[in-house]
Amino acid sequence: MERPDVRILSAASTLPGQPVDNGALARRFRMDPVWTQWVDAFVGTRNRHLSIDLATGEVRQSLADLAASAGQRALAGAGIDAADVDVVVMGTATPDTLMPATVNVVADRLGIDGVPTYQLQSGCAGAVQALDVACRMLAGGARTALVLAGDVSTKYFDLGVDLRKLPSAELVNVVLFGDAAGAAVLSTEPVAHSTAIRGLLNRLTGKGRAPGHTLDWFGPADRTSQRPAAVEDFKAIEQSVPVMAVEILKELLEELGWHRTDVDYLLPPQLSGRMTARIVEQLDLPVATEISCVVDTGNTGNALPFLQIEQALSKMAPGDRALGIAVESSKWIKAGFALERC
Amino acid sequence: MERPDVRILSAASTLPGQPVDNGALARRFRMDPVWTQWVDAFVGTRNRHLSIDLATGEVRQSLADLAASAGQRALAGAGIDAADVDVVVMGTATPDTLMPATVNVVADRLGIDGVPTYQLQSGCAGAVQALDVACRMLAGGARTALVLAGDVSTKYFDLGVDLRKLPSAELVNVVLFGDAAGAAVLSTEPVAHSTAIRGLLNRLTGKGRAPGHTLDWFGPADRTSQRPAAVEDFKAIEQSVPVMAVEILKELLEELGWHRTDVDYLLPPQLSGRMTARIVEQLDLPVATEISCVVDTGNTGNALPFLQIEQALSKMAPGDRALGIAVESSKWIKAGFALERC
Repeated sequence: MERPDVRILSAASTLPGQPVDNGALARRFRMDPVWTQWVDAFVGTRNRHLSIDLATGEVRQSLADLAASAGQRALAGAGIDAADVDVVVMGTATPDTLMPATVNVVADRLGIDGVPTYQLQSGCAGAVQALDVACRMLAGGARTALVLAGDVSTKYFDLGVDLRKLPSAELVNVVLFGDAAGAAVLSTEPVAHSTAIRGLLNRLTGKGRAPGHTLDWFGPADRTSQRPAAVEDFKAIEQSVPVMAVEILKELLEELGWHRTDVDYLLPPQLSGRMTARIVEQLDLPVATEISCVVDTGNTGNALPFLQIEQALSKMAPGDRALGIAVESSKWIKAGFALERC
Repeated sequence: MERPDVRILSAASTLPGQPVDNGALARRFRMDPVWTQWVDAFVGTRNRHLSIDLATGEVRQSLADLAASAGQRALAGAGIDAADVDVVVMGTATPDTLMPATVNVVADRLGIDGVPTYQLQSGCAGAVQALDVACRMLAGGARTALVLAGDVSTKYFDLGVDLRKLPSAELVNVVLFGDAAGAAVLSTEPVAHSTAIRGLLNRLTGKGRAPGHTLDWFGPADRTSQRPAAVEDFKAIEQSVPVMAVEILKELLEELGWHRTDVDYLLPPQLSGRMTARIVEQLDLPVATEISCVVDTGNTGNALPFLQIEQALSKMAPGDRALGIAVESSKWIKAGFALERC
């Protein structure tokens, strides 16, 4: 599809509270030190930030809180007022409520009104989908878009659970995920020294495949249901995600007409520290500098690409090129993006 | 914003089971006949279709079931194969799960793969938002879009609840809503005798306003929470929605350059039979034929505009014009669309 010339003017992220390491999780859930070593070695994620207070169970930040903070900082970074925003697009798997959509609560907090807003229900591909929808709106005449993305796992973070009795498909959720929100300001103005979006890939590849990651929700009529709320098919994910990441890289490079040596920065998928390391090895980009955060933030879902883009923007010099790759294992979505510093 | 020339080739809808009238609800919840009369007179919605079996509590259809059925029929109506679909966009407030997004489950069922999919988290403005995103994708080079929308309220339909003890802000939910899904096939091909989308309006107007409708969800960590899951501020809705509907009509007519006498068909908001009647009176379109379904289907949320569009397509003659108006009371979104038969 044709794409307009869209620039990222700024990116920002907000992480709740202090980092929570594997030892702190082990103490809270009364797991022995061997478990901590297992998480360090086999998951490779060392820290995450949580909106829930591990000591008291208090929920300190909602997704709207985190996204409003990130959005405010992105607007400030771009030197943009709320009144300049023509459209707001948000991606999340874990909205605070089903209605109103969290994007509209955040818009109100930021003083944005009278414009279209869209909230995508999405997993790890959500940030890319939100960038894509925003780019389409910019192609249709909007000049400035605020893109938001984030996830908050507090409704799944059951402090009363006995981790030793959980099947591993549910146990991994406790260590894999962190809470965060990210934001970016996009514009059709060819601002000097801004970063252009050169390509976006978003493609469902789920035909006939069972979901690799399911996140369920409960209403008042079924809250006593014993069905599991969050399940990972980690075997399927381990098998498929690295392969899909390599395919995404190939598709992006072909579409862009870039060579492997043209990629200065690689923003790889961030499922876990260990998975990311494996994927980066298989992507095998000879000169690219890796930009990852999962070891210190956990998998922050929709927020992740913005955490990486924020870092990339601070590092890229004129002419530098960056490729981002995201794989959504829910129903197997290939996603990616290409940036170039002007 | 500029808009591409997009045609609706077909629309279809799917309602679960047989109509459930107010008497059947009264018997199931042990309410006396006076309550039935109150619902008839003050809500004005006589029937709705439900995915839950009132006798047994069994959930017979998921949102994916209903949307796949509507989508299949829309594709057949347009004479389109799954392989011809370039993008799928869905709107819903009540996804079956948070991940995978229901749109991807439906795509799999329909045999659609390898294309972008988007699911909007939305209320009564969702169908319009989905049409809008689909039109943007068509402007960007996609040729054929499948648009889906629907809601299923089974997770909120607590058959064990004592309606007499519910505050009215929660009680109304039992009678107002019905389950349904709708679908439409959009194309950039100027097919003869198809219906063109002449305008789309989607504008948040929620600054500083409390939500009129909140729909919460529960995770495993908070499912014993006693906070209400679905709350309507029916007073605020009664005050604001008719005023907003009149404003939407005015904005659409101005943007289109249409006169009030140009509107042959009016597709008004469908909150309840009584509200719709009040709104139609205030819109005061002299020659327009009203297309409503709420009295017989209940408020089916995201599905509603497609139920109305399906009816409109079967009635419109060449040159006929139709206006659709939708108000989302969650955080107060103005939405609307304009159709013209070519």
